[in-house]
Amino acid sequence: MKNFVAIEELDLTEVHQLLDRATAFKQGETATPTPVFVANLFFESSTRTHLSFEVAERRMGMQVIPFDASQSSINKGESLYDTLLTLEAIGVEVAVIRHTENNYYEDLIPRLNMSIINGGDGSGHHPSQSLLDLLTIRETFGEIRGLNILISGDLLHSRVARSNAHILHQMGANLYFSGPTKWYDESFNRYGRHCEIDAVLPQMDVVMLLRVQHERHAAETSLTKDKYHDTYGLTIARAKQLKTTAIIMHPSPVNRGVEIADELVESSHSRIVEQMANGVYARMAILEAITNQKRGN
Amino acid sequence: MKNFVAIEELDLTEVHQLLDRATAFKQGETATPTPVFVANLFFESSTRTHLSFEVAERRMGMQVIPFDASQSSINKGESLYDTLLTLEAIGVEVAVIRHTENNYYEDLIPRLNMSIINGGDGSGHHPSQSLLDLLTIRETFGEIRGLNILISGDLLHSRVARSNAHILHQMGANLYFSGPTKWYDESFNRYGRHCEIDAVLPQMDVVMLLRVQHERHAAETSLTKDKYHDTYGLTIARAKQLKTTAIIMHPSPVNRGVEIADELVESSHSRIVEQMANGVYARMAILEAITNQKRGN
Amino acid sequence: MKNFVAIEELDLTEVHQLLDRATAFKQGETATPTPVFVANLFFESSTRTHLSFEVAERRMGMQVIPFDASQSSINKGESLYDTLLTLEAIGVEVAVIRHTENNYYEDLIPRLNMSIINGGDGSGHHPSQSLLDLLTIRETFGEIRGLNILISGDLLHSRVARSNAHILHQMGANLYFSGPTKWYDESFNRYGRHCEIDAVLPQMDVVMLLRVQHERHAAETSLTKDKYHDTYGLTIARAKQLKTTAIIMHPSPVNRGVEIADELVESSHSRIVEQMANGVYARMAILEAITNQKRGN
Repeated sequence: MKNFVAIEELDLTEVHQLLDRATAFKQGETATPTPVFVANLFFESSTRTHLSFEVAERRMGMQVIPFDASQSSINKGESLYDTLLTLEAIGVEVAVIRHTENNYYEDLIPRLNMSIINGGDGSGHHPSQSLLDLLTIRETFGEIRGLNILISGDLLHSRVARSNAHILHQMGANLYFSGPTKWYDESFNRYGRHCEIDAVLPQMDVVMLLRVQHERHAAETSLTKDKYHDTYGLTIARAKQLKTTAIIMHPSPVNRGVEIADELVESSHSRIVEQMANGVYARMAILEAITNQKRGN
Repeated sequence: MKNFVAIEELDLTEVHQLLDRATAFKQGETATPTPVFVANLFFESSTRTHLSFEVAERRMGMQVIPFDASQSSINKGESLYDTLLTLEAIGVEVAVIRHTENNYYEDLIPRLNMSIINGGDGSGHHPSQSLLDLLTIRETFGEIRGLNILISGDLLHSRVARSNAHILHQMGANLYFSGPTKWYDESFNRYGRHCEIDAVLPQMDVVMLLRVQHERHAAETSLTKDKYHDTYGLTIARAKQLKTTAIIMHPSPVNRGVEIADELVESSHSRIVEQMANGVYARMAILEAITNQKRGN
Repeated sequence: MKNFVAIEELDLTEVHQLLDRATAFKQGETATPTPVFVANLFFESSTRTHLSFEVAERRMGMQVIPFDASQSSINKGESLYDTLLTLEAIGVEVAVIRHTENNYYEDLIPRLNMSIINGGDGSGHHPSQSLLDLLTIRETFGEIRGLNILISGDLLHSRVARSNAHILHQMGANLYFSGPTKWYDESFNRYGRHCEIDAVLPQMDVVMLLRVQHERHAAETSLTKDKYHDTYGLTIARAKQLKTTAIIMHPSPVNRGVEIADELVESSHSRIVEQMANGVYARMAILEAITNQKRGN
């Protein structure tokens, strides 16, 4: 694997290989140190993803070069390509990039020798998040085929909803979508169907909540936080409808009291903290696959 | 020791154990590498304390995860608790935190497994500074009992004055306070008494100067820098009154020409640079005590 | 070598020793790890130089302490000297500094034990850039004596033009200068002569282009980017006049389409990417010379 930019580009065998390696790391397998230079270029701030990659890189024995996007020559008008060309010239072999622009990597990949790991692009992809979500579901239920999975919230602007729908559908899950219809996109019909959360909740094995982007939505909507919570959110009342074995997931950061009631974030149903822990193992697996390719393994 | 948030929470035996370990590190003892992940969360900028912890952490063989408070999700409204929950989930076992709010750690400690080291809270505590101050006094005089110590300046808002007064009094020092009376707090009477600097200076063994926070005081006072220096500061003339064995201390950064005459900062009486050096050893001792507890030692 | 602040302070033997060590590192020699603490203080942003030093320091096995100039106590009015005094006290032995003020280091050096490496001062010096330029020319042509070298652009404000002219002249190169006459300085006459780029281009072995500082020049000049390119820049048409063996150099970041045509940046004549790669080896050689001196080698 030279680059890791979209989960859709992997076949199921590759996905399961990554999940197997992530599981091995979680069970205590230590990585062979690979003293490769890596840089994390986050042009949108993201504590969680950024630090998760940082920990994964350190655990892989990599040399992490600090890159402060807010201080970089990009602000003097340098293109992303020229910045990456510099990093490649000075010996950086892997770049983890988060960028506001969808598919920013397409023009870059054919022009660079370095590997690119997509840490999230615009409203496009967030493949390491998809991988950690799959890991969390697989480790809970053993397999994904036949599971009833609800994805709820702003499907239109979500970086993970589309990728997750695609891969979970491919793996044989039954998908349901909920949330405001104006945030739904007909193209999701190929994977499942839109419905009221209350109609399907008691049958669900997995409830994946998406983050409400208040920054984005405040202007365009009359939906208050309280109203969102009551109408679409996972309230305490709704959680009582869940199967005992059902799990709650959220990519974080959570808006407590909006997508989900405060008290449910660390409840026994919740895998939200576990997802963050799994993020490190999923990213170790990605980094391993990429450095293996460089070493000709 | 699981957390290190206030020097008042330690008994004298624990304080002396930390001082003994700090002394050993200063004398060249190398730490057993503890590859624990640590993050430094500084919500107020502080070059000195931040970098001193960073060096101490590296010397302890720890993995330091870079955390840029100004870029963090805290700015998107995430709570400090949720940020720490994330760090804990991804494997960070120790957080060093500086925060504007007094006692910010009280709500956090019972909810987290990670260790918290207080790098300074509001006008509350700054226990690693207290420890390095004690180390500096003890290594000069052998013991603290019976020493005459003057603490001079803004006692009301100082993060270290109260803790230092408490612990030095407990250890048997005779305490004196000076500076503007409006910056004095009657509660210090339990540890010593307020007086004119000129009245007591010739008897002092230790003169601890506090930093004048011009940012804070400019608006509320007619006290110019020059006037402060002349009336309350350690001028060259006053320094001539010092015993030959007396030492001058300051937590830094120094306002040269305000709390202390420029020429005295690196004079033979001064321990100001030595205090900064001692800060690294004191912090190594704190980190060792905390990681030992995690390792069950 | 205790400090490295200006290439003019080295004799030619020392320059060649550094170039020999840089070449050895490029050929794969690994450095003996020197676990010295180093800090990079960049008061002007510079992705390239900063990260190049960072990679070099890691390759030398040094401990790099992160220093964020924008967050430092310098902003609270602390002097650069007091900041360095702090770093020295906590154990930092080498500081790499970029500063807006010419010769900022002159007052500092006699007062500090730590080593200072100048990463660029105002419009003064940029000696590590000079060293990597020499390395790039020497590895292409074997030696510098007798080469025809054109330096083109804003000679007046360039940090590298004067140093490069000085050292290349000393090494026996024939120097030519071009660009707007108002950006020329008569003092360069001691090293070579000013001329039209088209008059000398076919005889040149090396064409060193300087970056146009649009930020600086926009206000004072009617010279548009296009007009600069047509009149003074290395256009595609001009590049056809080059000897087949001629090389193009630029300190980066390049203004594509201004100093040089976009298509020429990664052409076969260009050494621009190679210069960035060589920067790491040149800086490893500098760091080695300085840490050797500390170790008494």
